[in-house]
Amino acid sequence: MELRLDCLPCIFRQTLEGSRMATEDEALIREILNEYAQLIPKLDSKEKAPAIVGKVHQIIKEKTGVADPYQKFKEEHMKLALNLYPKVKKIIKDATDSLQGALIMAATGNSIDAGLFSKVNIKDQIEDALENGFVQSDFELFKEKLKSEAKVLIIGDNAGEAIFDKLLIKELNKFGVEITYATREVPVLNDVSIKEAKEIGLDQISKLISSGCKTPGTILNNTTQEFRLAYQQADIIISKGQGNLEGLSSVSAPIFFLLKAKCNLVARILDVNEGDLVFRFKKQKERLD
Amino acid sequence: MELRLDCLPCIFRQTLEGSRMATEDEALIREILNEYAQLIPKLDSKEKAPAIVGKVHQIIKEKTGVADPYQKFKEEHMKLALNLYPKVKKIIKDATDSLQGALIMAATGNSIDAGLFSKVNIKDQIEDALENGFVQSDFELFKEKLKSEAKVLIIGDNAGEAIFDKLLIKELNKFGVEITYATREVPVLNDVSIKEAKEIGLDQISKLISSGCKTPGTILNNTTQEFRLAYQQADIIISKGQGNLEGLSSVSAPIFFLLKAKCNLVARILDVNEGDLVFRFKKQKERLD
Repeated sequence: MELRLDCLPCIFRQTLEGSRMATEDEALIREILNEYAQLIPKLDSKEKAPAIVGKVHQIIKEKTGVADPYQKFKEEHMKLALNLYPKVKKIIKDATDSLQGALIMAATGNSIDAGLFSKVNIKDQIEDALENGFVQSDFELFKEKLKSEAKVLIIGDNAGEAIFDKLLIKELNKFGVEITYATREVPVLNDVSIKEAKEIGLDQISKLISSGCKTPGTILNNTTQEFRLAYQQADIIISKGQGNLEGLSSVSAPIFFLLKAKCNLVARILDVNEGDLVFRFKKQKERLD
Repeated sequence: MELRLDCLPCIFRQTLEGSRMATEDEALIREILNEYAQLIPKLDSKEKAPAIVGKVHQIIKEKTGVADPYQKFKEEHMKLALNLYPKVKKIIKDATDSLQGALIMAATGNSIDAGLFSKVNIKDQIEDALENGFVQSDFELFKEKLKSEAKVLIIGDNAGEAIFDKLLIKELNKFGVEITYATREVPVLNDVSIKEAKEIGLDQISKLISSGCKTPGTILNNTTQEFRLAYQQADIIISKGQGNLEGLSSVSAPIFFLLKAKCNLVARILDVNEGDLVFRFKKQKERLD
């Protein structure tokens, strides 16, 4: 997905938010904001939003000397998800189709970070999600493709929702598939990296790899050879969250995008409303932008 | 109120919004956004947000050649307020204290523009407003100061809410006061200028003047001699909306600020919640920032 004008002020807001995670020094934050401002006129409209957010996050790290500005936020995020884990597990168990339930919960996990910001009641959201399900769903197609020994690549997103992904992986494992779970290369925003994925125990139930990306979204050119191999060999790719959609919307591979449409722009592109849950298959040559 | 870091991304968003009111040419809008971005590192933190928004609005006008980008929006805004006028008039008539009712309605008018954006049900908001009233109110003090022949200066804000201000002026006129109503010098955002104030008929029931300001908020240094005279001689000053609060929060004059707290920052400064209605007196030397 190429950069849209709407992304520029939104990334500016995220720059301020990220800076405040790292420091309380207002003069230093102003310097970081100035750096982003100076970057804007130079930005090529072909750049993808996650690449720009990655650059900004790098500026925040360098200016403040804090390697993982979202660490505390991420810990709270994971703690909240862990508290919800038994409830979500039961919801999936009780669902008419437990695999579909697990996919819905894995998409809902995407709300946890927003919940921490705005004190949204996540418990209510989880119940609503199961009731309302996906606004767009290619679940039937997904089930057709899900055969024993199929290679499944899941591209993770936030650290908190990765806890719900554990339940999805467990459901998928019942089909005898071979799962690879890819994380970011370094801490960027509240995204899952190898460290958190191991804490969650994803290495016990899937093959855990880093995508190589230092951006809050997968950009194919920046991935490792190991990731690209898993990507090429996968029978099914599940891409989680908006950042990965923004990075992979126009690649020439078939992908199931599993996400909550969190901003108006992505909602418009997917033809859904903000806040809707989506499980959408992109065909080989299709472009979602 | 001095510039806060939160204002920078917010003004960026407003720059995009304002540009889209004037043109659909994405490349031209990008140029405007770049100009604002280049301005950011040069901005003195002592500058007030409305002054910066004024500069940006000037850039939009110059780049697009559109003298009044919000004209159509303002017309819709005024049409909506006119449709609500009979209902609001009745609410004020039926209120226990019609002057207090008129003040509450004049503050609620501030929501009309937001309503146009987000399809908020303004009718519901009006009823809620009357029920909930002001979260902070210096109405009793206001009534004490309200004597026959007192000079009252009202500093207007948006064009739509100026229609509700008409009802406030009518209530105030019952006390035999002498009212001056000040508008912006030129069209800026959806603010009221002499043209719209005359269309509404405010010149029939008050002395209509321009403040001289070309910014969406009154900045004393930029006002005309005529405005400053009215300002100095006023027994009561009513400043409407956030922009005027941002401009006048630290001047050495007693002012009643009448507004809806529309952003988190202003809400925090006033110690209220976003969306709350406020009628707050600032003493002579007090600073609200």
